Amino acid sequence: MRKLLFALAALVPLTLHAADKPKNIIYVISDGMGPVYTTGYRYFADDKSTPEIEKTVFDRLHVGSASTYPAAVSGVVTDSAAAATALSTGVKSYNGAIGVDVDKKTVPTILQMAKQKGMKTGVAVTSQVNHATPAAFITHNESRKNYNEIAESYFDQRIDGKFTADVILGGGTQYFQREDRDLVGEFIGAGYEYLNNINDLPAIQPGKPLLGLFAPVGLPWALDYPQKKRLLSLTQAAVRNLENDKGFFLLVEASQVDWAGHANDVAAAMGEMADLADTLEWLEAYVDNNPDTILVVTADHSTGGMSLARERAYIWKPDFIHKLEHSPATIAQKLVFKPAGAQREKLAKELLPLEFEAEELEALKKLTAVDQQGAYSWVKSVIDRETHTGWTTGGHTAVDVPVLAKGLGAEAFVGHQDNTEIAKKLISALP
Amino acid sequence: MRKLLFALAALVPLTLHAADKPKNIIYVISDGMGPVYTTGYRYFADDKSTPEIEKTVFDRLHVGSASTYPAAVSGVVTDSAAAATALSTGVKSYNGAIGVDVDKKTVPTILQMAKQKGMKTGVAVTSQVNHATPAAFITHNESRKNYNEIAESYFDQRIDGKFTADVILGGGTQYFQREDRDLVGEFIGAGYEYLNNINDLPAIQPGKPLLGLFAPVGLPWALDYPQKKRLLSLTQAAVRNLENDKGFFLLVEASQVDWAGHANDVAAAMGEMADLADTLEWLEAYVDNNPDTILVVTADHSTGGMSLARERAYIWKPDFIHKLEHSPATIAQKLVFKPAGAQREKLAKELLPLEFEAEELEALKKLTAVDQQGAYSWVKSVIDRETHTGWTTGGHTAVDVPVLAKGLGAEAFVGHQDNTEIAKKLISALP
Repeated sequence: MRKLLFALAALVPLTLHAADKPKNIIYVISDGMGPVYTTGYRYFADDKSTPEIEKTVFDRLHVGSASTYPAAVSGVVTDSAAAATALSTGVKSYNGAIGVDVDKKTVPTILQMAKQKGMKTGVAVTSQVNHATPAAFITHNESRKNYNEIAESYFDQRIDGKFTADVILGGGTQYFQREDRDLVGEFIGAGYEYLNNINDLPAIQPGKPLLGLFAPVGLPWALDYPQKKRLLSLTQAAVRNLENDKGFFLLVEASQVDWAGHANDVAAAMGEMADLADTLEWLEAYVDNNPDTILVVTADHSTGGMSLARERAYIWKPDFIHKLEHSPATIAQKLVFKPAGAQREKLAKELLPLEFEAEELEALKKLTAVDQQGAYSWVKSVIDRETHTGWTTGGHTAVDVPVLAKGLGAEAFVGHQDNTEIAKKLISALP
Repeated sequence: MRKLLFALAALVPLTLHAADKPKNIIYVISDGMGPVYTTGYRYFADDKSTPEIEKTVFDRLHVGSASTYPAAVSGVVTDSAAAATALSTGVKSYNGAIGVDVDKKTVPTILQMAKQKGMKTGVAVTSQVNHATPAAFITHNESRKNYNEIAESYFDQRIDGKFTADVILGGGTQYFQREDRDLVGEFIGAGYEYLNNINDLPAIQPGKPLLGLFAPVGLPWALDYPQKKRLLSLTQAAVRNLENDKGFFLLVEASQVDWAGHANDVAAAMGEMADLADTLEWLEAYVDNNPDTILVVTADHSTGGMSLARERAYIWKPDFIHKLEHSPATIAQKLVFKPAGAQREKLAKELLPLEFEAEELEALKKLTAVDQQGAYSWVKSVIDRETHTGWTTGGHTAVDVPVLAKGLGAEAFVGHQDNTEIAKKLISALP
């Protein structure tokens, strides 16, 4: 039995040499991913051909939890901007703050500090690249809403005469190719390679600075993505382009777990979690092969008040989601775009293969093409009823979030910590 | 900076000697305590006279998380019986199972194994002592609902000729002093000291077997308890009576966090969490003074789908709960017992010092003395509105639960694990 205790102790992530510093830092933020998302994903991903429920990459990498509250002026429920600022600078700020403190003074971010130390830096996200989370690593602004200013600062800002980020991958052409300013053209003129097709990523020449914008705003839902593993494509390209002798800092964001939570869309949430899981499995192997790298994964907050069960039933059944060939938003569009009456009911049964209740079919008939939100709500309510998923809000909640870590120095993240402490620990790991 | 990483690594709980085994095992189960309860308690307990938000004992002891799903036949949402069986035996079973497997065969529990190894054993709980959680440690039954059978087995069952539990503290006179069988009398006849007043606990002579039943069923809510720290009183008495050269195994259950969750009563939930926090702070110091002891704390599941924020507002404000002098259930009783009209409104403003909305006052007028549940719902809805607390169910949910540990061997509990693995690790720590 003593051997068992020994063996279990060996599961604790160990530093190779506690005094060594990691060469590369990969910081993954899953926007909106409270504990209910990592738990739900386990049951969603379960291999039904085996009797046991398999542990996931989230389980394997789990080391602790983090509190997410913003500066006192914003209460205890954070937004993504304040949380990203805490995670990038170690400083609490107000909701809406991008890399600035409560007095709106700029605070240096870990990505900027890494650049200053001679490391290469990058971001790979599924939102627009100037959305709150990546913005709070690259730049500073008193409001996350200043999307154009934030995008411009990505080009205009210099750290010791150099561009802040060597690799910028995600969505956002709407902000970077504007009538009043063509930032894409400016980046190309400054020597960046530019891509607008995600399929071209594997063919790029490593080592060059890289801007890739693959959608006007955010990327399409993972469930609607023709090429699966979209976040993995971005992450692999970023790592390949950032690898160098002096090391790199990479921010990866699974941006749309949060968007699924805001929409109270459990199917989209599981799709985004699967997209992230694919990415984390690759990063897990990357750290195995590059043990001088540290990987830290956390969330900025939880979204939606999602619950795995509702209305007194002791049931949560996500299996139905695997039958969907489109996201609920896309299914809703298809249902109201053209068909009506019996034709619409037939299509609904194809797109949502389950037993409808009489009142659901009644409501389906009444949907109109102009009310896309109504149609989307209808699809989600059917899926919630089938899976027994509950929700309490279209906003965020204050629950602590999971912390995952692997690689050189990972043991520092064991246990409970504040989100500012995650930043401080990682900043202390810079050269 | 290297020093900082070193210092942080030192925060990881360390074994004195990994090959040593703990002398005493203290296993705390907080029934229904998902991550939202430990998070919420931090903001509830925050000292407003300081600018920072203090970490709690839950934060200090946090080492990981646990999955709670029962045997496949019961889906992924567990009840307390299946979860307690997993936590006491390391075996998954069906919802309702008390120390038996899916084939209804008895499985040895860690408490029984500890007794067999010559350790003293005990349970200290705030429910009736024959409720699902303590029952699944002491005995075996195919259904948690067989309360009388379970109570009888506490007296009738022997482990190597000895009673299974040396100390049994909680509620339950309704089951132990029945017309058809006086189990209390039988325990006294067999040499147990018996108490029915919790105030007598400090005066008992250590070392004697002890039965204490302080309520017909469960103890009153912590918020209604005239002597605060009721779980601490039970725990201190249990430890004092169990301490001996051969070590002890003690199960402590904060049983009514779950009951507050089922009732969707955030005030009662925070009251129960405070009662548990007092107990854990004492146990934390106990392990500091007795480093040959291991303390492991977890939950069997989460209850209620509680969320810290609701309905799109980025607000959760538990401070109002500190103003309550009674539990919401007791406030409800007082409101409808006698007063009506303006008198009732006046009393409501005394008992719930906040600004009522017009429609809340309208609903208050209509409450009747016969509808206690309606009055209780009214009080809770006012508190939920004031604190911005959300709920999705009167039952359980599947979200993973926190794992806390301290003492000899605590590092084995770092990271994510299944609830059965917690039992297996602790069983491996027995002599």
